[in-house]
Amino acid sequence: MADFFNVISPPEAIDLMSKNLSVVDFELINTEDSFGRILSDPIFSQEESPSFDRSSMDGYSVRASDTYGASDALPAYLELAGEVPMGRAPELILSPGEAATAYTGGMLASNADAVVMVEHTKISPSGLLEVYRPVAAGENVIVAGEDFQKGDPVVGQGHLIKHAELGALMSLGTTKVNVYRRPNIAVISSGDELVEPGTQLAGGKIRDVNLYSIGALVENLGASANRFPRIPDEYDKLFEVANRAAQISDMVIFTAGSSVSSRDLTAKVINDMGNPGVLAHGLSVKPGKPTILGMSGGKPIIGLPGNPVSAITIFSAVVAPLIRFISGAKETPIDKVIEAVVDSDLPSSSGRTDYVRIRLAYDQGTVRAVPVHGKSNLISTLLSSDGYVEIDADSSGIYQGTTVEVNLD
Amino acid sequence: MADFFNVISPPEAIDLMSKNLSVVDFELINTEDSFGRILSDPIFSQEESPSFDRSSMDGYSVRASDTYGASDALPAYLELAGEVPMGRAPELILSPGEAATAYTGGMLASNADAVVMVEHTKISPSGLLEVYRPVAAGENVIVAGEDFQKGDPVVGQGHLIKHAELGALMSLGTTKVNVYRRPNIAVISSGDELVEPGTQLAGGKIRDVNLYSIGALVENLGASANRFPRIPDEYDKLFEVANRAAQISDMVIFTAGSSVSSRDLTAKVINDMGNPGVLAHGLSVKPGKPTILGMSGGKPIIGLPGNPVSAITIFSAVVAPLIRFISGAKETPIDKVIEAVVDSDLPSSSGRTDYVRIRLAYDQGTVRAVPVHGKSNLISTLLSSDGYVEIDADSSGIYQGTTVEVNLD
Repeated sequence: MADFFNVISPPEAIDLMSKNLSVVDFELINTEDSFGRILSDPIFSQEESPSFDRSSMDGYSVRASDTYGASDALPAYLELAGEVPMGRAPELILSPGEAATAYTGGMLASNADAVVMVEHTKISPSGLLEVYRPVAAGENVIVAGEDFQKGDPVVGQGHLIKHAELGALMSLGTTKVNVYRRPNIAVISSGDELVEPGTQLAGGKIRDVNLYSIGALVENLGASANRFPRIPDEYDKLFEVANRAAQISDMVIFTAGSSVSSRDLTAKVINDMGNPGVLAHGLSVKPGKPTILGMSGGKPIIGLPGNPVSAITIFSAVVAPLIRFISGAKETPIDKVIEAVVDSDLPSSSGRTDYVRIRLAYDQGTVRAVPVHGKSNLISTLLSSDGYVEIDADSSGIYQGTTVEVNLD
Repeated sequence: MADFFNVISPPEAIDLMSKNLSVVDFELINTEDSFGRILSDPIFSQEESPSFDRSSMDGYSVRASDTYGASDALPAYLELAGEVPMGRAPELILSPGEAATAYTGGMLASNADAVVMVEHTKISPSGLLEVYRPVAAGENVIVAGEDFQKGDPVVGQGHLIKHAELGALMSLGTTKVNVYRRPNIAVISSGDELVEPGTQLAGGKIRDVNLYSIGALVENLGASANRFPRIPDEYDKLFEVANRAAQISDMVIFTAGSSVSSRDLTAKVINDMGNPGVLAHGLSVKPGKPTILGMSGGKPIIGLPGNPVSAITIFSAVVAPLIRFISGAKETPIDKVIEAVVDSDLPSSSGRTDYVRIRLAYDQGTVRAVPVHGKSNLISTLLSSDGYVEIDADSSGIYQGTTVEVNLD
């Protein structure tokens, strides 16, 4: 059993856990279904793209040398040899002095090396093409391989597949990809005071909130949430459910009460689930101090505080990075951190990391971080906030007007 | 038939379309399944929350007046009357001079009006509770209704349900909600040059990209994408598929070629689908000029440019706001716009809105917007960029060092 009252900082907690974690295994899926998944093998281009010289304009493919010196006063006159239809290989071979109709995205005639835009041409009464501007070889043409050369890296390992990656893979004919399996995350809510949300409340009972809000946050990270609802504060029942959950999951999250007895029960269950058990009992943070971090059978086991605001804050600050790690993700999404100017002084006790909930406000081009006041354990403060500002343990606060990073939930 | 070569600006386009649009209808669903949906009716609290005075600490519920004047030197001595277990109504009624064990989140004993933290107490050898600090009435107590009063607004109409909203609704016992139906968006790809992504390329063919990338962007907005793949450039076939798609969809998006003939075919189909048909043929933008906007039977019909980069940019700048409108969403997500400092001069032609693709870079706390150079029709520029900066039609460019808003795709 590890130190029982070992209170550590969030960065220490993430380090401590990360070095014991492993990334989930991978599976082969259709690229068509890969949006939002994380690539487990890097993808390199197997061919050049585009695969042929494409016209980037509507106009006429020509031999560039035939247009040299052309001007409004003295156009070049070319013979129209025909057209190269969209999606077809050219059947035309241009002789000197000839041109062929070309479409945006289509092929050039054989022997052509440039495209004259239709706006710079006219058909003469005798049916000849009059060209008013010279073109250089390669002009208005996307040459084969300009987008990707054979062997070019396309999407890296650990990279999230978004719309652009999906399009790039499809364009290169990569219709199957290896991606990391979605991690299975068990969310266990426990507490004698919890009842199902559909229940009318009677003395001392509250409706279960964390099971749903934490479940939603898990799914929002691209993982699967497996919810185990409302276990009473009894060792045997909690231990049995926890072991069952651990067997089929990559991580187990308890959301239990915030009382000492409830936390002690969770800690005892985590210790008994297997070595090393509890690694840290308590974080030097506000809110969220009663957080428990442990490992069992190589799987991370987390005890979140029961207070819904603390639970969500600790989830975002500590648990989400761990889930991203086991998901195989290499980067934190760029849209999860926004810079903003602090709207009023944020005092803080040093020796403790403070998470101050804030609301973003837009003011003539400036993004302002407005602290959401009110007790940290009220759900209404969550509704009116967009995220939080982290104040380091070695800081005694942040002055009004300072630019800070806001972590969006 | 509306003006055929009516080139308008993106804000004009959004205005023109929005005034003809209506929001989709709504459906009653379980709150449990409502994550990511948009509320169609505002929710007000039907009760006060919490429903009882809760202890916010582990300790002892007391009558505050019994602790007045207590100090380390001169503690107050109280009789321990018992405990109030978690999730239970108190069976104890405190007489003057009595205290009862209280748990974080639990009820107080009857007649108690404050909680003394366990850290400020000791049990004397004779079994009395020694209290070393006075508490005021209400101290360490969350009073009933402090989070929500009966009738308080909880989540507004048109608001996205995220984890906090989900938790709040559950805490208040709102287990069913009316949400807007997910809009059905048809995505039709057409072009004689398109082949299925699994196909080996032969002369002039390219693999279909937009069907997948645009489909992914649609789904990412919370709408359902219905994909109609690879219709040839033949009027009858395209017209038939377009009408079928329009009947079962709330919006139809064509991704066609960028050649004049392909755009003219799309425009003819949109006009023949019903009044008013094409509203704007061309936008004063770069890239994305060959965009077609129309309406038929009250449904928006969009012709996106064939070039994948243009298609994605116009989707984000023009089509996404329209989909949000018909989805019933009241706000643009706060994480879709990030402020950044432009890394180099961005020249622009006035009279035209320019979308410059950029990559975000973090540099000692400053977010920099680095322009991604390269031809706008290369998919590789999409892969290396995070979003775009919009340069207004009346601007001739943006100087290096200017702070701009970056729109993330």
